[in-house]
Amino acid sequence: MKTAVIGCRPLMTLAGAPGARRGADLGRVESIQDGGLLIEGQVLAAVGARAEIEALIDPGTEVVDLGGRLVLPGLVDAHAHPVFGGERVAEFVQRCQGCSYSEIAAAGGGILSTVQRTREATEEELVEGAHRRLSWFISHGTTTVEAKSGYGLDHETELKMLRVIRRLASEGRIDLVPTYLALHAVPAGQTQSSYAEEVVRETLPVVVREGLAQYADAFLEPGYFDADTVEFVLDAAKAAGLGLRLHADQLTCSGAAQIAARLGATTADHLEQTGAAGIAALADADVQPVLLPGSVLGLGLSHYPDARAMIDAGLAVVLATDFNPGSSPTVSLPMVMALACRYMAMTPEEAIVACTINAAHSLGRSHDRGSLEPGKRADFVVFDANDPREVPYWFGTNLVRETWIGGVRY
Amino acid sequence: MKTAVIGCRPLMTLAGAPGARRGADLGRVESIQDGGLLIEGQVLAAVGARAEIEALIDPGTEVVDLGGRLVLPGLVDAHAHPVFGGERVAEFVQRCQGCSYSEIAAAGGGILSTVQRTREATEEELVEGAHRRLSWFISHGTTTVEAKSGYGLDHETELKMLRVIRRLASEGRIDLVPTYLALHAVPAGQTQSSYAEEVVRETLPVVVREGLAQYADAFLEPGYFDADTVEFVLDAAKAAGLGLRLHADQLTCSGAAQIAARLGATTADHLEQTGAAGIAALADADVQPVLLPGSVLGLGLSHYPDARAMIDAGLAVVLATDFNPGSSPTVSLPMVMALACRYMAMTPEEAIVACTINAAHSLGRSHDRGSLEPGKRADFVVFDANDPREVPYWFGTNLVRETWIGGVRY
Repeated sequence: MKTAVIGCRPLMTLAGAPGARRGADLGRVESIQDGGLLIEGQVLAAVGARAEIEALIDPGTEVVDLGGRLVLPGLVDAHAHPVFGGERVAEFVQRCQGCSYSEIAAAGGGILSTVQRTREATEEELVEGAHRRLSWFISHGTTTVEAKSGYGLDHETELKMLRVIRRLASEGRIDLVPTYLALHAVPAGQTQSSYAEEVVRETLPVVVREGLAQYADAFLEPGYFDADTVEFVLDAAKAAGLGLRLHADQLTCSGAAQIAARLGATTADHLEQTGAAGIAALADADVQPVLLPGSVLGLGLSHYPDARAMIDAGLAVVLATDFNPGSSPTVSLPMVMALACRYMAMTPEEAIVACTINAAHSLGRSHDRGSLEPGKRADFVVFDANDPREVPYWFGTNLVRETWIGGVRY
Repeated sequence: MKTAVIGCRPLMTLAGAPGARRGADLGRVESIQDGGLLIEGQVLAAVGARAEIEALIDPGTEVVDLGGRLVLPGLVDAHAHPVFGGERVAEFVQRCQGCSYSEIAAAGGGILSTVQRTREATEEELVEGAHRRLSWFISHGTTTVEAKSGYGLDHETELKMLRVIRRLASEGRIDLVPTYLALHAVPAGQTQSSYAEEVVRETLPVVVREGLAQYADAFLEPGYFDADTVEFVLDAAKAAGLGLRLHADQLTCSGAAQIAARLGATTADHLEQTGAAGIAALADADVQPVLLPGSVLGLGLSHYPDARAMIDAGLAVVLATDFNPGSSPTVSLPMVMALACRYMAMTPEEAIVACTINAAHSLGRSHDRGSLEPGKRADFVVFDANDPREVPYWFGTNLVRETWIGGVRY
């Protein structure tokens, strides 16, 4: 089955070094004004000028003309919490009326309220809720999404979440990369250390044995988990073969970036409060920063991470949604790009690279996605636009017309 | 032709006082959990519980079941600039890199660059560009949009813009309410007063004679137009029978709110910098504030208008997009609501009322739209949600599934 997609403007990251882009290369992209793609099965067979693609058409080839529209690589969301029970609309209203995220958490709201609803939900209910939200991801251009557990905070529910994520991935629509968020909040009736011991003794071995996750993650933040507990759990996860991601320096600068570096984490995520020392540590250890401006807007805050300093330090910056029912209820990577351009001084091209090849690299997937290149998955997004800079420019406006995943058009 | 729309949750503003809602009434809404609407031609014939609507079905009635989805009144955007030549993507990139809006304007960018492109464009080209953008408005739930001229800054081009707006309105899809933005920027080679005299002597009489606008508007801001010039032009417009709107206190607090009050304007728009005295003046004169948080985000700023003080003063607050190619390239009223809830302490219900009945009232249209009531236009929006609070909660995410305008489904 061959499909030729012509009459479009495909945008590619520059050929050259494989994997992530950094420094001056971060925003270097090229596009073909009147180009096309040839798809064979689930894979891109060719990307080039219209004439090159047309020369590959044979009688059995389906031909799709996009009328000059922009085509980006399928967007990759490298930090998301798409599986949970319930929503937190009522808490959102409390925040509209002036309650802080911390006040709500202290009163039993916040993450713990989602934990309650997630524990009560059946697998079936979790799948159903996630289906609705994953359809939104697709309609906003996302083709691969990282999916964290972390709303269970007990052995059974964490495994239930990871099995739901596996089931969703097996459906073959949007691809999910599973992360065991081992330390998200301290469950009621436990201490940090008692919960950490349970994680390492009981849950982590099952996660690894059943292949339920590729990464482990933790929320390092005063009031949630301290550095010792995080290191105890993530060292064990690493020894068991998982890659590491870390929620670092979101609300306070606690040296979490340096701990991510010391642990050899693949990514350090959030980093709103990280300063020069933390950035230098990430650069020395080649940790990818995953920046989440949606959670800044979602909480009504105004202090964004210092993306420019990170780019200048040579880091391979990633942008992601942090999609979750509390602090960042958005599925839209174009919205995240719009914030990064306006509040983090990133250029549109840098923002696009941060949501495609760099995000794919941070998930160990840059070999088969994140750019439009022959041999990679036929994951791409068609926008009602011609210029790539329009994607972050028209903020809050969904310009996605079609999302193709593995050669299938949604 | 009758259509029964059932299996939905229609949200209505509370019955009671006609027109706009204010103070404690601003956020009072009611909804019917398992409700329906009956449409006859372009008009709502009934709104009620499913059983009531089902009782009105006869053999010729088309029946649409929405599966429990939320239905809001068609969104009304009371401040927008949807007609212009060119776009300002390059300038957006300059701003990403640290140039301010004022610096760009001083270098010949900003409004004047759009003026150049608008003058060069044919009516046909302006219509074509607007069609693309108006389709976005519709797909994000807007059914009525105010449309300003103001990118001509000369007699011919201002009239060309208003004729394009009339032509777009006559197409019978999304409805447009025309505003003659008489003073938007000082054209090259003129002074404020020479341009104002040209407006009053040449253009305004034609606008009024041909019925090309219902409102006149001006941009009162140091560096653009001063109070004397604005009063000279808007007094003339009022005397000629136009309603008045005023761009007030956007970048500086210059007493513009008080001038709007003195002029008897229908609305004062922006008001980011307006303090207690200005709010009191608006309340005394019953001017509706039209708040435009999209232009705050669009410019990468963080100082939002004080909506709560305005609501507390009894003002009938409106929210609008300020859609334009420079400071606010968004068509999405749900995005605007999301910002208003997070940065202006408005509740979701207040934000919805501000984008429906209050916006309609500010355009002199609350008699036939802005709420779901028998006898009003069948303008409504179907969301992939059940709870109205989800509309601002899931920010940057387009949940609109269908937009119905005058009984026609888009």
